[in-house]
Amino acid sequence: MAAADLTAVVPCPWELREHYDFLESLVPQLKGKVLVDVSNNLEKNLYPEANAEYLQRLIPGAHVVKAFNTLSAWALQNGPSDANRQVYLCGNSSEAKQAVAETATKLGFTVLDRGSLSTARELEDFPLRLFPEWRLPLRIAVGLTAFFFFYLLIRDVVYSYVAQGKNTSFRIMVSLANKVFPIVSLIMLSLCYLPGVIAAILQLYRGTKYKRFPDWLDRWMLCRKQLGLLALGFASLHVLYTLIIPIRYYVRYKISASTIEQIKENQTSEFNISYAWRGDSYYSMGILGFCLFLLLGITSLPSVSNALSWREFSFIQSKLGYLTLFFCTFHTYLYGWDRFLRPATYKWYTVPGFMLSLVVPTALLILKLLLLMPCVDRTLTRIRQGWERCDPEDDSKKSLLT
Amino acid sequence: MAAADLTAVVPCPWELREHYDFLESLVPQLKGKVLVDVSNNLEKNLYPEANAEYLQRLIPGAHVVKAFNTLSAWALQNGPSDANRQVYLCGNSSEAKQAVAETATKLGFTVLDRGSLSTARELEDFPLRLFPEWRLPLRIAVGLTAFFFFYLLIRDVVYSYVAQGKNTSFRIMVSLANKVFPIVSLIMLSLCYLPGVIAAILQLYRGTKYKRFPDWLDRWMLCRKQLGLLALGFASLHVLYTLIIPIRYYVRYKISASTIEQIKENQTSEFNISYAWRGDSYYSMGILGFCLFLLLGITSLPSVSNALSWREFSFIQSKLGYLTLFFCTFHTYLYGWDRFLRPATYKWYTVPGFMLSLVVPTALLILKLLLLMPCVDRTLTRIRQGWERCDPEDDSKKSLLT
Amino acid sequence: MAAADLTAVVPCPWELREHYDFLESLVPQLKGKVLVDVSNNLEKNLYPEANAEYLQRLIPGAHVVKAFNTLSAWALQNGPSDANRQVYLCGNSSEAKQAVAETATKLGFTVLDRGSLSTARELEDFPLRLFPEWRLPLRIAVGLTAFFFFYLLIRDVVYSYVAQGKNTSFRIMVSLANKVFPIVSLIMLSLCYLPGVIAAILQLYRGTKYKRFPDWLDRWMLCRKQLGLLALGFASLHVLYTLIIPIRYYVRYKISASTIEQIKENQTSEFNISYAWRGDSYYSMGILGFCLFLLLGITSLPSVSNALSWREFSFIQSKLGYLTLFFCTFHTYLYGWDRFLRPATYKWYTVPGFMLSLVVPTALLILKLLLLMPCVDRTLTRIRQGWERCDPEDDSKKSLLT
Repeated sequence: MAAADLTAVVPCPWELREHYDFLESLVPQLKGKVLVDVSNNLEKNLYPEANAEYLQRLIPGAHVVKAFNTLSAWALQNGPSDANRQVYLCGNSSEAKQAVAETATKLGFTVLDRGSLSTARELEDFPLRLFPEWRLPLRIAVGLTAFFFFYLLIRDVVYSYVAQGKNTSFRIMVSLANKVFPIVSLIMLSLCYLPGVIAAILQLYRGTKYKRFPDWLDRWMLCRKQLGLLALGFASLHVLYTLIIPIRYYVRYKISASTIEQIKENQTSEFNISYAWRGDSYYSMGILGFCLFLLLGITSLPSVSNALSWREFSFIQSKLGYLTLFFCTFHTYLYGWDRFLRPATYKWYTVPGFMLSLVVPTALLILKLLLLMPCVDRTLTRIRQGWERCDPEDDSKKSLLT
Repeated sequence: MAAADLTAVVPCPWELREHYDFLESLVPQLKGKVLVDVSNNLEKNLYPEANAEYLQRLIPGAHVVKAFNTLSAWALQNGPSDANRQVYLCGNSSEAKQAVAETATKLGFTVLDRGSLSTARELEDFPLRLFPEWRLPLRIAVGLTAFFFFYLLIRDVVYSYVAQGKNTSFRIMVSLANKVFPIVSLIMLSLCYLPGVIAAILQLYRGTKYKRFPDWLDRWMLCRKQLGLLALGFASLHVLYTLIIPIRYYVRYKISASTIEQIKENQTSEFNISYAWRGDSYYSMGILGFCLFLLLGITSLPSVSNALSWREFSFIQSKLGYLTLFFCTFHTYLYGWDRFLRPATYKWYTVPGFMLSLVVPTALLILKLLLLMPCVDRTLTRIRQGWERCDPEDDSKKSLLT
Repeated sequence: MAAADLTAVVPCPWELREHYDFLESLVPQLKGKVLVDVSNNLEKNLYPEANAEYLQRLIPGAHVVKAFNTLSAWALQNGPSDANRQVYLCGNSSEAKQAVAETATKLGFTVLDRGSLSTARELEDFPLRLFPEWRLPLRIAVGLTAFFFFYLLIRDVVYSYVAQGKNTSFRIMVSLANKVFPIVSLIMLSLCYLPGVIAAILQLYRGTKYKRFPDWLDRWMLCRKQLGLLALGFASLHVLYTLIIPIRYYVRYKISASTIEQIKENQTSEFNISYAWRGDSYYSMGILGFCLFLLLGITSLPSVSNALSWREFSFIQSKLGYLTLFFCTFHTYLYGWDRFLRPATYKWYTVPGFMLSLVVPTALLILKLLLLMPCVDRTLTRIRQGWERCDPEDDSKKSLLT
């Protein structure tokens, strides 16, 4: 099939299917020709069938190929650029697809054949997509951030103003932010591993892997990657906000003031080795946890995860993931240390933010430890390899099978 | 076509086309065979036609396939490695290409068919490429860096030596560098968004999108990604140079000296809340801007941008990009604060570097705000959807069309 | 070939070849059908031939295609996800492969044809792979880390306890770690460039590039990327551990104590410009080296290195790589400064860790400089372009060839 047989349908002035009617008069001329449908809709589910399928129905004699619609007009004019490198195409005639693919290849694009014309709807929906899989995780992140921001605002700023008469509102910009970010990060990291543990418990309880998970669990599992990446974003903010601490005016002022006070009162504070141990371990755990977290983030880049075997990917995301969670949780425990014993911690009878953030990861780590116990682990492995527990009430089903 | 029909042309000792003549004696033997041309040239545009096309002309009976020339000799010997994973091929016979593709696949390479033999020239130029699209942005970066380095050297080091007799040459290594990097970064980031705004103004002025942009604007738009990535590099340097500040001997000395002085003069400086607010907002804006900037950088990784739809990519690069620019500009304004009021700022009647760096981003943000005004935005959207303003002088053209 | 002809072989309950026997009874029914072998083995080299080849032998009339075995069961149920996006397939019938490829494409997977059924073994080994190319570099990293940890533990902690009676055990968590990480990083970075220099020397000595390198050198060269990435990981840890320094309790205590002491003894230390120069250069070199190192890491991401031409990739990895090594080595020399003159440095007659870490990179940089000398470089370039030195003892071989 020669390139001369190729005809692109780009109805002017907008590439909308309303203008397809005029093609009906061209039915005889288009017979046997390759018709490229580059149209897009302005919103999803506007029409019962895909534009390309509608076009094929209008002109049955032509070989309709859906292509190029995922590219911007600028890319079509200027050649491939970022996010405009891949041409998805579909169609019922493989010769027609071949002809379009060759043209696209010549223009420098990479062609991905998505099969028959019935997938045209998917291709037409693609340009309208705006991070559908990020919505739930983003909502969780925004919700958690807002909650902890106001919670800590009351505990830290409002309390010190009301109870002590001190204006510490400037703490909002760095100190408060640097409490909210790690809390949200830790909770979201554990939310990323929680569905896996829930699924394992469900499988153990049901005694089989052949029942589908409830819908909410499936949806949750499908956004684990996004939860993890958002948690990594918050962790990065926490790292930068922490590293900026010693440059802050407030911190320099406080340190200088404490030195001056020591001299005036002519007493030097004693060096406390256990305090040094605790502080250094706290930083060390945080750094190791963050570096492992970065590694998890890097391996979820598409090109890196594509290069990994399934076993390697699950080793990193599961084994190293739990190690990351452990480091980060331990880091938070070291931050808390013996604060839970001091009454001053519970301002206005509220618990500090870091204690709230420890609930989910601690529960998760305990559950995971229970699942790793030899007897439980063995049963779970057998279930995952296809074994089913024979409950008495399932006997009827079993006898039918044998 | 069996693999046995495959013949590779690797003229010894160098794979140069000068040695192709000897193949003329083999014309009868090579008839119907697949000839793989792996040759490369030592520089661009050395010959009027591609080596593979010349070979095809020499031996018309053979099926010439251009392939493997983009790989290093080491990769051909040892199998695929980084930057040696993809085999580009082109040729006029699809059976011949199929045979070569199968061989390459067996060796572990990924095959990308670039079409007919007329694209051979492109494949032969590929190995000679050395960051052509990075040249202009790199020149701009080097030029800006050099200019601001000498400008600040005079203002900071030479001035304090001449006017105050103090040797502060050691400031070159960190303090001066940490002024040059953020200035260059901010200017380059705004240069990355400026062409988009210029293009919009041009479209508004012309009242149509169907006229090509001038060449310089097209070239500028094509290197926006590189401008942005270089700006990100400078921003990263700025972050590291800033975070290292409190470890520096000079800084520690100054802080200690100021504490000692406070004690000797027996007066403690008052804690200034508005100064704390300003400083913390300044750091916060910088961190948020940098993290958004990192996000822009990550989404311009090929594998990430390939996984995004066009709408998602332009959302990140445009919406989040302007947010990044706003944060970074605001960060610089907070750095300046009320310095522009103090006469000491204008040493030798020069303006400080950060003021110079604010010119382009401020102008850009104001222009963008004007373009976002409802009346302007509506016209621009209509123009981008294909609408054309009917200027009186264009009537002749219009009547021709209808 | 219609999709209806497709039959997947998923022997229950485990996808093991032990259960293939039962298929023998179905030989007549499976004639001409496409049989998809999705089986995997529990360990490598369990059977003399691949499962798919065994299946083809059992049922010669069917068209066996190996596919989908690299995906997790979860991906087969729920569609593509990370590390489960690519379907590798192989088989002897291209029509059968085409049919399977279309099905996989419809399910949203990307298909990579690996050739004939003889590559089935490779596909069956793929899911069992667990970072084979990372093993040697990881062992080197663990070995070096352990050695330097204990070496520095004795020098820093044990020595100060035994000789000075001070308990500085808390230094293990940050100070000691921050000495081990940069040492291991620098050594591994130089180990990453050493094999290239050894290979060049070997080629110069032999006078030809047509002799294979010894096996250990080939293995070493194949894990250079992993060595470099591990070195980058250690360098990142070093950066974070360094930036955390000013927040540490120990550091704040020491600085405060030194200020207090200065006041009590009523003597202020003089500001030392050469000390400021040295410190700032030291930090500057470190930051520049680290940023270049990050750039090397980013360009070794699969999607980035795929987009580079071989010349661009080798420019970055070789030219910028040596620049990185130079910056990092110089950074370490600046750290050492005049310490090698002070007797206190050699506690218990041992040399400090940073001196040990300088041995390999210094030797490497000197060797590289020698190789860059015009006369040596010219010979090496000629050898790499195919030229061979005629040693007298090689004459016999030469005469045979002509």
